[in-house]
Amino acid sequence: MRKIEHIGIAVRNLEEAIPTYEKMLNTSCYKIEEVESEGVKTAFFKIGESKIELLEASKSDSPIAKYIEKRGAGMHHIAYDVEDIHSEIERLEKEGFQLIQSSPKNGADNKLIAFLHPKSTAGTLVELCQERTD
Amino acid sequence: MRKIEHIGIAVRNLEEAIPTYEKMLNTSCYKIEEVESEGVKTAFFKIGESKIELLEASKSDSPIAKYIEKRGAGMHHIAYDVEDIHSEIERLEKEGFQLIQSSPKNGADNKLIAFLHPKSTAGTLVELCQERTD
Repeated sequence: MRKIEHIGIAVRNLEEAIPTYEKMLNTSCYKIEEVESEGVKTAFFKIGESKIELLEASKSDSPIAKYIEKRGAGMHHIAYDVEDIHSEIERLEKEGFQLIQSSPKNGADNKLIAFLHPKSTAGTLVELCQERTD
Repeated sequence: MRKIEHIGIAVRNLEEAIPTYEKMLNTSCYKIEEVESEGVKTAFFKIGESKIELLEASKSDSPIAKYIEKRGAGMHHIAYDVEDIHSEIERLEKEGFQLIQSSPKNGADNKLIAFLHPKSTAGTLVELCQERTD
């Protein structure tokens, strides 16, 4: 793992949260993207070598809607940038980590992604992220 | 704000979480530090330009103990590196953000710190961090 690629933050209302983050980070939102398969609308901010990804549920039964219902708004996952997601998945599985999916899938912001289950990471949802080259 | 300085992650058991993070991030813990005033024991890992700070409660009535009791283990706060914490506090107060303390205090890892209340940040506890020069 090379760096924190982004921090995923679940918010109740993206339209309200975007200007809040613009004022707080003193930078503009550079991309808004809906990932329909995940039932989520995302907004991105650059901060150093990392990003903040705000997440609003676009469907009432999406993982983000369920998360907010259970735990409230707040930090949802931490994503680490990896050079080769396939070899990193193999390494982590050998180390005993539980992958939510053992084959990477397409995520927002032009990435190949896979998640580690919080049970095997001392309580945090962890995303592996590799920039897509296609 | 210049970069993500660290992500603070509340864990139930630091002794168990440290080897988990060492395996996951593929790097060694470089510092363990107790902050008695906060009732917390911390462990640090470098990842790119940022750090992961694991937090275990060292007292049953500490903020981390209460956080875990209420929400379980997981991401607790996000800390941003600032050049001048005093001017950043002034800027954020003018923008309407609610500071938990308006004067910075000493934190772990040789830092001057101040927290923004989650109510004014769309739900996330935010820490401002300036490297101490004394």
